[in-house]
Amino acid sequence: MTRNLSVNAARIAEDISDLAAITEPDQPWTRRSFTPMFLKGRDYLIRRFEAAGLETRIDTAGNLIGRRRGKNPGRGTIMVGSHSDTVPSGGRFDGIAGVSAALEVARALADQNITLDHDLEVIDFLAEEVSAFGISCVGSRGMSGQLKPEMLAREVEDKSLRAGIAEVGGKPDQLLTDPPRTDIKAFLELHIEQGRVLEEAREDIGVITAIAGITRIEIIVEGRADHAGTTRMGHRLDALTAAARLVLSIEAIATEKAKGPTHFAATVGEFEIEPNAANVIPSRARLLIDARAESRVDMEAFVAEVADLAKSVAATTGVTIAPPVTISDNLPTPGDADVLDILDAASDAVGARHRRMASGAGHDTAWMARISKAAMIFIPCLGGRSHSPDEFAENDDIALGAAVLLEAVRRLDKALQD
Amino acid sequence: MTRNLSVNAARIAEDISDLAAITEPDQPWTRRSFTPMFLKGRDYLIRRFEAAGLETRIDTAGNLIGRRRGKNPGRGTIMVGSHSDTVPSGGRFDGIAGVSAALEVARALADQNITLDHDLEVIDFLAEEVSAFGISCVGSRGMSGQLKPEMLAREVEDKSLRAGIAEVGGKPDQLLTDPPRTDIKAFLELHIEQGRVLEEAREDIGVITAIAGITRIEIIVEGRADHAGTTRMGHRLDALTAAARLVLSIEAIATEKAKGPTHFAATVGEFEIEPNAANVIPSRARLLIDARAESRVDMEAFVAEVADLAKSVAATTGVTIAPPVTISDNLPTPGDADVLDILDAASDAVGARHRRMASGAGHDTAWMARISKAAMIFIPCLGGRSHSPDEFAENDDIALGAAVLLEAVRRLDKALQD
Repeated sequence: MTRNLSVNAARIAEDISDLAAITEPDQPWTRRSFTPMFLKGRDYLIRRFEAAGLETRIDTAGNLIGRRRGKNPGRGTIMVGSHSDTVPSGGRFDGIAGVSAALEVARALADQNITLDHDLEVIDFLAEEVSAFGISCVGSRGMSGQLKPEMLAREVEDKSLRAGIAEVGGKPDQLLTDPPRTDIKAFLELHIEQGRVLEEAREDIGVITAIAGITRIEIIVEGRADHAGTTRMGHRLDALTAAARLVLSIEAIATEKAKGPTHFAATVGEFEIEPNAANVIPSRARLLIDARAESRVDMEAFVAEVADLAKSVAATTGVTIAPPVTISDNLPTPGDADVLDILDAASDAVGARHRRMASGAGHDTAWMARISKAAMIFIPCLGGRSHSPDEFAENDDIALGAAVLLEAVRRLDKALQD
Repeated sequence: MTRNLSVNAARIAEDISDLAAITEPDQPWTRRSFTPMFLKGRDYLIRRFEAAGLETRIDTAGNLIGRRRGKNPGRGTIMVGSHSDTVPSGGRFDGIAGVSAALEVARALADQNITLDHDLEVIDFLAEEVSAFGISCVGSRGMSGQLKPEMLAREVEDKSLRAGIAEVGGKPDQLLTDPPRTDIKAFLELHIEQGRVLEEAREDIGVITAIAGITRIEIIVEGRADHAGTTRMGHRLDALTAAARLVLSIEAIATEKAKGPTHFAATVGEFEIEPNAANVIPSRARLLIDARAESRVDMEAFVAEVADLAKSVAATTGVTIAPPVTISDNLPTPGDADVLDILDAASDAVGARHRRMASGAGHDTAWMARISKAAMIFIPCLGGRSHSPDEFAENDDIALGAAVLLEAVRRLDKALQD
């Protein structure tokens, strides 16, 4: 693809390849939040932000922010960005593509001597991926006033999340007392899709209608640990075979729901049995279901069906299954309708083929939507692979996304004045 | 039950309660082979053997043997016994009931001033339960010439099995060079059933037609570790849902085979998935099947059906399943036909209700059958529970079994002269 874009694809390629080089050497690509390697990545970004002429600071929640002042700061801020931290042995693009594209928006505005009415802020959110502290989206939760004192008190190896935020330059005490920002009028995030929808449809841009709600449900199956050799087949209370029935029924229910018009997926991602010994009939199984739904109605129906399923498997097999426990439950976050229209129009203006779709993954945008109009765009990634060293996105696809982001920012700058 | 038995039930009760007291204090009932607690149990048994007038020794394989000399030692030896080691948090009866019943046979003969023609040996086999060295039936394998140099070389925490056998008083070097004993003309073992057949039939004695063959089969399922939120239901290679299909089909095949005239059971006892993370579709599953068959034809058919099953699940789900690997394969061991007839007759003579049945569990008898006529009897145990602190057998049931054993030994002493 060779397009005459309003952004500089080579600078994006340089950002991404320079950041890829800042990795735990034996485990590419790893730049875990709260580690020295993460701070090296931040140092690099600070230099790049400053080279782009941005006024750079760390906010109370430990987010790195670069500001390009607008002509009329009273109008408030348009914010763009994503995150630079990775999972262990993660990829070079998840989060990073969005930070680089946001930075490129600022650089392109400078190149073209365009000054917006609003302030523009480019952000690298702190710790979007689940960190050692067991919590995701630390920076965007913090900015939106959702980082609670008990979260800040969490400790890993005698260090609290509070101390971790302070080490990256944040001000956790002030974070708890300052009210959330009210100046942010719109937030946009570009991210790789982490799925295969755009790749298969050969489309450039996904305009994200909603970030799916995520509900996690735990099920415990209690059987009886009899001798595997001596206990006749009909006399068993086998927790594993009962749990296998749950797994297959959960897959069937989710497959049926996924046929509907909105995104739905459910996965048993954690599964363990006890005693897990060759010659003992499994006495206990634990399942953790991760369910994602664009529609809250779908999610509530799924939770109810899983509860019925547990009862019916217990009744037919004789094992004991306690009512499934919902251990976390985040509502779906719809994108701002006005911003979605602007993203469609910006895609058309740049000549990018686009579709509306939902995000099955969680993102900082879901937290930002609590304090600002917010929406996301996706760009394609190879085979949908993510959270893996194999993760790959074409630089031209990122650049085209950055051009859509730039166009959307310019249109927002005007639209938000109306 | 109050019967006028030829054995002393009170002495059996004393053996069992004294041995139960020799346990790791925080983990009743635990007397693991190769531990100081095991040696305390051995010390107790040596005193009891000597009090019964037995000439007591440790053989090259580390078995404790007490001999009551016969009138005509040239006729060889009749051996009775079982094992005194336990699994962790095991029971008071598995193995121990058989050692005590065997000892009671010798005590009863002494009480009644009966001298057999054959030597009688009472044996406590070393390490019947799988020990830290990962091997079962150490003593009976050793006695039957089946303890290979590579087994003796196995090390746990810098100690070899060879050193472990030497510590309990065995002579591992001599064990490897001495030929297996040829003087043992018959071996009998009493054991708790570890199942519910006798209890449900309200019978006293199981005359064991065969010890089931044990075949262990490993299956590895390889899927793809995609993002649980973003990967659509139809686009997944989920190793867990494929493995769940295997688990249920294995259960169905085994249930069908168990309807036949001979014992069959199969259990998936070990089951793990990777990466076992809430938001990642499982990329790998490992299953270990434990299959038990009285009939070798059944076992070979089962192994073939599991191979076909793996192919068909791979074909229908898209995951990769390597051909299942048989990681251990022990043939079934039929009881000696003449000895089984004697056990039936002895049960009748004592007035014990008896049935022929197979053992689904492995026992020292399976190894002894390689060098001697051999057979077992089972006595009932509560609810089939075993390898658990809940394991329980009525003392009267053990005593009745010991009486059958005594009667069988007397009949063998005569029959083996013919």
